[in-house]
Amino acid sequence: MSNVELKPGERVDDLQLNGLKIIQDKERFCFGMDAVLLSDFAKTHKGDKVLDLCTGTAAIPILMTEKCNAAHFTAVEIQPESADMARRSVMLNDLEDKIDVINADINDLPEMFPKADFNVITVNPPYMSAGLQNADEPKKIARHEIFCNLKDVLRVSAKMLIPQGTFFMVHRPNRLAEIMREMSAAGIEPKRMRLVYPYFNKEPNMLLIEGLKGGKSDMRIEPPLIVYESKGKYTQEIYDIYGYGK
Amino acid sequence: MSNVELKPGERVDDLQLNGLKIIQDKERFCFGMDAVLLSDFAKTHKGDKVLDLCTGTAAIPILMTEKCNAAHFTAVEIQPESADMARRSVMLNDLEDKIDVINADINDLPEMFPKADFNVITVNPPYMSAGLQNADEPKKIARHEIFCNLKDVLRVSAKMLIPQGTFFMVHRPNRLAEIMREMSAAGIEPKRMRLVYPYFNKEPNMLLIEGLKGGKSDMRIEPPLIVYESKGKYTQEIYDIYGYGK
Repeated sequence: MSNVELKPGERVDDLQLNGLKIIQDKERFCFGMDAVLLSDFAKTHKGDKVLDLCTGTAAIPILMTEKCNAAHFTAVEIQPESADMARRSVMLNDLEDKIDVINADINDLPEMFPKADFNVITVNPPYMSAGLQNADEPKKIARHEIFCNLKDVLRVSAKMLIPQGTFFMVHRPNRLAEIMREMSAAGIEPKRMRLVYPYFNKEPNMLLIEGLKGGKSDMRIEPPLIVYESKGKYTQEIYDIYGYGK
Repeated sequence: MSNVELKPGERVDDLQLNGLKIIQDKERFCFGMDAVLLSDFAKTHKGDKVLDLCTGTAAIPILMTEKCNAAHFTAVEIQPESADMARRSVMLNDLEDKIDVINADINDLPEMFPKADFNVITVNPPYMSAGLQNADEPKKIARHEIFCNLKDVLRVSAKMLIPQGTFFMVHRPNRLAEIMREMSAAGIEPKRMRLVYPYFNKEPNMLLIEGLKGGKSDMRIEPPLIVYESKGKYTQEIYDIYGYGK
């Protein structure tokens, strides 16, 4: 593991998976269970080129290097400070040959990569409509659709994927109808969904969705993913996804 | 309870709810758990006029007379034999002043009722695409989209509902993306969904969906509805919905 310089306010957190580390700053957006679940939900084939949009500090591609057999990851983040933390996290884990970090607006990607041929896209986008939010705070940019909205994510994804390429996203259940509409409109047909319920008798608070570029309309919904067995105690499946005890 | 004549092959089944009965023929489509769950999922207000499409033997409106406070139900069925059984079931339960049964193609409803002002629509439509099915068997007509498909159901529903009227449907999870798209296209926005899982660790096999005519895009997904606690033993919620032990 390389030595990498930390800036004021930053700390190195353990990704709980085979010694992987990540640089975070608690004043900025820190990765959550969403990223961990998406890195497990996304499936790749050997040799795949993966593009992670709205990557933040690159938690998803870093985790995926351990969880799948994709060949290479490109991680795109609009906020320069987050992209810089992502780059240093990649160095910290000696993953420079596996992960490229790009500081860019995703809306510029089709022009930057006119011959893009990604097999897989992963994205943990801002969940909330922009509303009256200001764009002056890093956490707000990460959480609200200020610089990119769902339509942007899907339009760009459709352009960056090869035909029959797969798209994996984590989002909020209240946006489900819009997600289905926008995916279809972009030509990325929903094929597999899993709802994440905090407890077995509560409403879900996350949804994991897989789409297929150019796919036909017919999908699977997987068994519910329940997070807590009881207060403070994860279900076995969550422990397995986090890789505890391995 | 009135005396009503049965035809050959027919039998009277108990709806397990406050003594309600239904006439069915095992050679034809018999109501299933789908109808029972939809009759419980659908919510009405006092005085509402309800339209049940693809009513079959009218299980849903008959059950709903006990479960809600709507004023009146109109039940529409395309197959004359099923519509006739539905009418006799209504008589058997002395519900002639609450339920009208109409033998018609739902596609003709907007012309038959140009001033329709239903508050609520319920529908348990054919689940499967028509494919190469023949239209010569009653069960196939009930199960496959031979005489009406999802688009028809939604187009007709949008015309028959008042503004802000509500739409309740039970369908198959594999059609979810298409359901969301077609609902939005018809102007009936998905607002509430519940997935029905046979066991807590299995894929769902039914989905219950509520739409609002003219609604905004934002929805709730309810806690999972689990059918079986163990083999042959329903969960308490299913017993409650069926009204056992009341």
